[in-house]
Amino acid sequence: MTQSADSSVAPRIIAQQAHSTAAALAALATARKNRWLRLLADALRASVAPLVAANQQDLAAAQQSGMSSAMLDRLRLDQAGILALAAAVEQICLLPDPVGELISGERRPNGLQVSRVRVPLGVVFFIYESRPNVTIDAAALCVKSGNPVILRGGSEAIRTNLELGRLITETLAAAGLPEHAVQVVRSTDRQLVGEFLQLSDLISLAIPRGGRSLIERVTRDARMPVLKHFDGVCHVFVDQSAELQMALDIVINSKCQRPAVCNAAETLLLHVNAAELWPSLSAALQQRGVELRCCERSRAGLAGAVAATEQDYRTEHGALILNVRIVDSLEQAIEHIRSYGSGHTDAIVTRCLEAAGHFESAVDSSAVVINASTRFNDGGELGLGAEIGISTDRFHARGPCGLRELTTYKYVIRGTGQVRG
Amino acid sequence: MTQSADSSVAPRIIAQQAHSTAAALAALATARKNRWLRLLADALRASVAPLVAANQQDLAAAQQSGMSSAMLDRLRLDQAGILALAAAVEQICLLPDPVGELISGERRPNGLQVSRVRVPLGVVFFIYESRPNVTIDAAALCVKSGNPVILRGGSEAIRTNLELGRLITETLAAAGLPEHAVQVVRSTDRQLVGEFLQLSDLISLAIPRGGRSLIERVTRDARMPVLKHFDGVCHVFVDQSAELQMALDIVINSKCQRPAVCNAAETLLLHVNAAELWPSLSAALQQRGVELRCCERSRAGLAGAVAATEQDYRTEHGALILNVRIVDSLEQAIEHIRSYGSGHTDAIVTRCLEAAGHFESAVDSSAVVINASTRFNDGGELGLGAEIGISTDRFHARGPCGLRELTTYKYVIRGTGQVRG
Repeated sequence: MTQSADSSVAPRIIAQQAHSTAAALAALATARKNRWLRLLADALRASVAPLVAANQQDLAAAQQSGMSSAMLDRLRLDQAGILALAAAVEQICLLPDPVGELISGERRPNGLQVSRVRVPLGVVFFIYESRPNVTIDAAALCVKSGNPVILRGGSEAIRTNLELGRLITETLAAAGLPEHAVQVVRSTDRQLVGEFLQLSDLISLAIPRGGRSLIERVTRDARMPVLKHFDGVCHVFVDQSAELQMALDIVINSKCQRPAVCNAAETLLLHVNAAELWPSLSAALQQRGVELRCCERSRAGLAGAVAATEQDYRTEHGALILNVRIVDSLEQAIEHIRSYGSGHTDAIVTRCLEAAGHFESAVDSSAVVINASTRFNDGGELGLGAEIGISTDRFHARGPCGLRELTTYKYVIRGTGQVRG
Repeated sequence: MTQSADSSVAPRIIAQQAHSTAAALAALATARKNRWLRLLADALRASVAPLVAANQQDLAAAQQSGMSSAMLDRLRLDQAGILALAAAVEQICLLPDPVGELISGERRPNGLQVSRVRVPLGVVFFIYESRPNVTIDAAALCVKSGNPVILRGGSEAIRTNLELGRLITETLAAAGLPEHAVQVVRSTDRQLVGEFLQLSDLISLAIPRGGRSLIERVTRDARMPVLKHFDGVCHVFVDQSAELQMALDIVINSKCQRPAVCNAAETLLLHVNAAELWPSLSAALQQRGVELRCCERSRAGLAGAVAATEQDYRTEHGALILNVRIVDSLEQAIEHIRSYGSGHTDAIVTRCLEAAGHFESAVDSSAVVINASTRFNDGGELGLGAEIGISTDRFHARGPCGLRELTTYKYVIRGTGQVRG
């Protein structure tokens, strides 16, 4: 399963194979891409048994190596998961094709017709851990947006990923798409990742998806642009004008609905003039098993709460732990978010138009949320249909990245013989 | 002029000062930014004497060090140049402010109002050579788009740049804008550039503008995204259906109107069925002093033409030199452009709708031009108003980069208490 004498594992060869399909993929009609997606969905449904068998082997090996139950959970692909994956592929089939979209167009004074047309980005190198469903999601999103993709999953999921890769390759052939449009890297040798990251002449974009160390490594070593999905240290600020019920709903949903994900809240900021809400809020949170890490003021007289450290305020707990800080003003809340936040998702609960407006313009996060849960910063919820991740970068794309974010544009200039004077 | 004991030359301090102005600049009303631009234009016009004096010192030093006359030309800033610079600043004043633009908006089924709003990118580190007018252009474009900027010009222009920097600082103060919104780096120590390029926690974007070695160094060392302006190996393909007069006009304008710039043509591809145009085309080109580097077929019987090498086809000559190749088909022309081109600007001259359509979709350059000069791939000509460069990257922005390309966006999500179920 690791290094092989097979020269097809050489990163440059894999990348060249991917690159050689780029022009054909970019020109592919939507109907052809959708046909492949439907074949892939069918193949997934027809292959539950071999997929589960391969996944069981991965799970057994991971268990033997002492993997935590949370990680085993991520690695698991059962029948329900496979059917959900097939349904997700069919959803991508229904999304509009971004390639060829006319972004803007105008006629210049000299009669030139100038337009910007959406085109694919080029070869994508996708590096991810554990969850084998990413293999299918990434393949479907990249091909639908006209981009060849090289998929490099974690060694713990290699048997499942290779089985998924087999389905992808077979259905690409059946749909008449280039064989190397999607390649699952067979070798799990970690050094190969570094080699891929050097190939800026062939690979347009690297997308790491996984833990902090993976993302830091990719960011450091990549010679091509990186679209990354980093920490989500998200805040809910309960303003002085907030109503208790709305504050309760939003804080609890932001923290508890799915605490492990990046758009879950890590810190509650409470305006000092709304401190009378705190007994009800803290009781409701504790009732749901949330551990509270509090500033001095919010901790006073609260049984079971511990003191928050500086580090807590910077930490994506990813669990039922919530930092709490009482602030003296909207300005102090904004300052806290600027200092400790990660620019992912930050919400305000307020009835005050001025406060909402100031929060919206002063907080510079990928999503600024007014009177709703932080959990809405998600491709599906925001209308992108499906996402390859939530960018915490500022460049190219911010927040949820779907098909559109996997594209770029070119200028098309149409004339009737114009020259410059 | 080089290293100083003054701690203000430390890159981290300069970058922190820039970063500390980011929130204020992002929130600045358009009228305030425009007021500064008008004050800057006035200051430039009022300071012709000291600017020319500083520039004369730079020119004298450069001449002594043996700088070529072409480079001296780039370094020169005379009265006419200063007045043109002031006019350019006033043009930027007239351009719409990209910050706050509503890019898209919709209401989701659950009532959430989701929009994408344009916001500044953050601190820009601009590294450039020779031309001191870049100091003013970059400062004006960055501030108008709400971005703090650190300007690091070439050592050969340091006296002129510091004098321009003095005007910028004085007018920022007069307009009530943050002093560190624009900083001209005083030290010309080359090592400092490397230090700036490490500061990805403070600097959002590096923009190198200059020769190949500068751009390669910045691309290699930068820990933040880079927007680069690389080679322009541009083509004109004269199709079999082209009319002689239009082909003549476009080829001559693309090559001769300003041969030193990146959107000038370097290679003429001529369809074999249009070879009867070649005697007239070659005569017109030679009459204008163009040196022709030809494939075997186009060289046959042509006095004064030399044989083109593989390397010629990859070279941005930047001078009155044109590579010529006769190709057997549109497909071969596209293949040539893919193999030898730099993805900058490529044009076709044709009367055939099918050929135009195929060329447009198959050529993936920042600008694909149909029946017009390659020289139109320019911010001013395409309606951007002013540009900081022409991106040859695929990520974030392609082709001319103006105010819009110096921005990103954030999602704004407005609810009435929505939570996720």
